[in-house]
Amino acid sequence: MIIVMGLPGAGKSTVLGKLSGSGYKLLNWGDLMFGIAKKKYGLAHRDDIRKLQTPQQLIVQKEVAALLAKETGKIILDTHCSINTPNGYLPGLPFALLGKLKVERLVLITAPIEEIMARRKKDMAGAAGRARELDEFGTREHDSQNRAYLAAYSAFTGAPATIIYNRDNKLDEAAAKLKSLLE
Amino acid sequence: MIIVMGLPGAGKSTVLGKLSGSGYKLLNWGDLMFGIAKKKYGLAHRDDIRKLQTPQQLIVQKEVAALLAKETGKIILDTHCSINTPNGYLPGLPFALLGKLKVERLVLITAPIEEIMARRKKDMAGAAGRARELDEFGTREHDSQNRAYLAAYSAFTGAPATIIYNRDNKLDEAAAKLKSLLE
Amino acid sequence: MIIVMGLPGAGKSTVLGKLSGSGYKLLNWGDLMFGIAKKKYGLAHRDDIRKLQTPQQLIVQKEVAALLAKETGKIILDTHCSINTPNGYLPGLPFALLGKLKVERLVLITAPIEEIMARRKKDMAGAAGRARELDEFGTREHDSQNRAYLAAYSAFTGAPATIIYNRDNKLDEAAAKLKSLLE
Repeated sequence: MIIVMGLPGAGKSTVLGKLSGSGYKLLNWGDLMFGIAKKKYGLAHRDDIRKLQTPQQLIVQKEVAALLAKETGKIILDTHCSINTPNGYLPGLPFALLGKLKVERLVLITAPIEEIMARRKKDMAGAAGRARELDEFGTREHDSQNRAYLAAYSAFTGAPATIIYNRDNKLDEAAAKLKSLLE
Repeated sequence: MIIVMGLPGAGKSTVLGKLSGSGYKLLNWGDLMFGIAKKKYGLAHRDDIRKLQTPQQLIVQKEVAALLAKETGKIILDTHCSINTPNGYLPGLPFALLGKLKVERLVLITAPIEEIMARRKKDMAGAAGRARELDEFGTREHDSQNRAYLAAYSAFTGAPATIIYNRDNKLDEAAAKLKSLLE
Repeated sequence: MIIVMGLPGAGKSTVLGKLSGSGYKLLNWGDLMFGIAKKKYGLAHRDDIRKLQTPQQLIVQKEVAALLAKETGKIILDTHCSINTPNGYLPGLPFALLGKLKVERLVLITAPIEEIMARRKKDMAGAAGRARELDEFGTREHDSQNRAYLAAYSAFTGAPATIIYNRDNKLDEAAAKLKSLLE
């Protein structure tokens, strides 16, 4: 399993969208969480996962990890390195979960902070009107903490950690770099 | 348990002093260490803890951890993220200890480095004449390493990690932020 | 055991060369790996270790760890904090290995990035013609990730972590700092 993480606005989904034909099955951690929470607790919206009580969240997380442990093929897991909540950085891959996965490689997709901020402004202005963090100081801190989490995940699993820059107008370079890691 | 950490001069104690009435019991790791070391090894001064042999330090640490594991109510543990000793950064929460605690939240209190340096100079000039590290380069490095330790602690425990800035003349903001995490 | 790590060009070997008479036995992780891989898999060159299949690499790593666990005297282990491979940062001390060693102290030798870049250019121009990474942006990132790995290793082992700067024309200062940690 290859785990791909990234800041909102780093363009993780766009880069992952370029990987068709790689022979990897793409799984999204949030989707898996929602799928289970929906069945188990009747959740209607993906954002309601955050509103679950901690014990319930842990149950859902465990089921997702069990589900992933059963996958036998080549998988890319799309998740967060850390989630910047109003109450702090929530680790995307706490060791208790990470220990249940067979991780071959950890990838963090990021970009120059100025470019991330510009993309977020666009996202918010766009039709979808996605809610985005617009505080540059906080985004720099988040990016920096993500790199520290990445090192901790890598030290824990022994898996190599790659930082890929998805710069403006260089999407193909970022996608090529990620593809080279899948071979 | 909520663990609150901070650089000397970040104003951790001052921020914690604003929390009265929060329903949390405030425990200081160093005080607990000294209390046990005093009984067990006849230590006279808090600073003598550092002079204990490593095996004795480990015994004292274990007893503190056991004592904390018994606490059932809402606790704030006041400790160091890492201690900047002449021989390197000593982790305040090595995993062997951290694994014994039920950590709900990790908080690092810091401030712009220039403000920390100015506060330290004042501390040393003051009546109490507290010994403070005055090397700005080293303090920046310490702050940076603290953030990396914070991420490692968070990945290990799964607990969210918050960085609170206690800026000059903004003590109330920092205290309000910390209070919001206790709710 | 004291573990000494450093970026290529930080001058780790030069600093370690100044330690004669310290009573410590100097062991190089790469040499130990090669010694075992040579016997077991008939490797001819040190660089061939990288070409081993992952399962074979893990077997060799385990034997090195077992060998180190048997050492009873004072040891300095010379290794990498992380290795900057084309496929990402490979942790030098994944927890699975680190957990088998009795680590007393972790030391990272580094230098201002500009000085590292200048030294690398010299290395490549020199008679030995060593291959060196010449990308400054990447080297800054590597140095930064090394510090995050260092914190993770320190949190995991509980051992203090020291960052030593080996500045141009200040080799004696760096060596004296390292010596002071051996006492």
